[in-house]
Amino acid sequence: MLKRVHHINFVVRNLEAAVKHYQNVLAVGPFEILEHPHRPVKTARFQLDGTWIVLVQPLDNDSAPARHLQKYGEGFFLISYEVDDIDNAIQHVKENDGVLVDEISRPGILNWQVADLDSDSAYGATVQLVEEKKIPPEPEG
Amino acid sequence: MLKRVHHINFVVRNLEAAVKHYQNVLAVGPFEILEHPHRPVKTARFQLDGTWIVLVQPLDNDSAPARHLQKYGEGFFLISYEVDDIDNAIQHVKENDGVLVDEISRPGILNWQVADLDSDSAYGATVQLVEEKKIPPEPEG
Repeated sequence: MLKRVHHINFVVRNLEAAVKHYQNVLAVGPFEILEHPHRPVKTARFQLDGTWIVLVQPLDNDSAPARHLQKYGEGFFLISYEVDDIDNAIQHVKENDGVLVDEISRPGILNWQVADLDSDSAYGATVQLVEEKKIPPEPEG
Repeated sequence: MLKRVHHINFVVRNLEAAVKHYQNVLAVGPFEILEHPHRPVKTARFQLDGTWIVLVQPLDNDSAPARHLQKYGEGFFLISYEVDDIDNAIQHVKENDGVLVDEISRPGILNWQVADLDSDSAYGATVQLVEEKKIPPEPEG
């Protein structure tokens, strides 16, 4: 059911400072900066051999990443595993007594359609399922 | 410098229960069970498209994973990025004002040679560098 580690999110207080740290100390990049108004957060991501590392700065005090930051401080926020079909994967989790935060998938950044498992029931880790939805081509003309 | 996400460690209290959860709810496996006497911990790992997911149960109260479990509870413990040459990577981190827990690399499980960065200086995430050392072939005869 899980194909690969699609992305890993780290919550940070200051996106710009964290990006500089990663660029200098770990020699990674280039970064793409993306806003994600649904959360709301500001993100910076780079890719390593198919896996996105996403730095996430909350822009409010009430979203899941903001609450994580308040409770645990900066650091790992979630791991997202790619699946072929998010609805089927949600169904499998439910049938095997997994506990979901999102019983119906919700939009992530770009064309990512995601569903989070409840971390208390998943040994403390926020585990996410993600499907990259095909984007229909722009109509011509 | 970083080639890929080599492994991600999650600390758990009960390895057997966590393995069952992953097998049932996320339909992953097979798991390899490995002891790591240097820490000391017991680990179970499975691989997804080249990245190891490692569940770690501390066997003492004083190791880094045990202290992480006491402080934060179960969940994400560290992300390990593969490098070609661990000594060169350590040197790069030092020259760019990164802070290392391991100024000299130390043995991980199997042929993994690792060095951890200090999490307070790395935006709360425990970031590790890892080189898979070539194992010399067994002498014949």
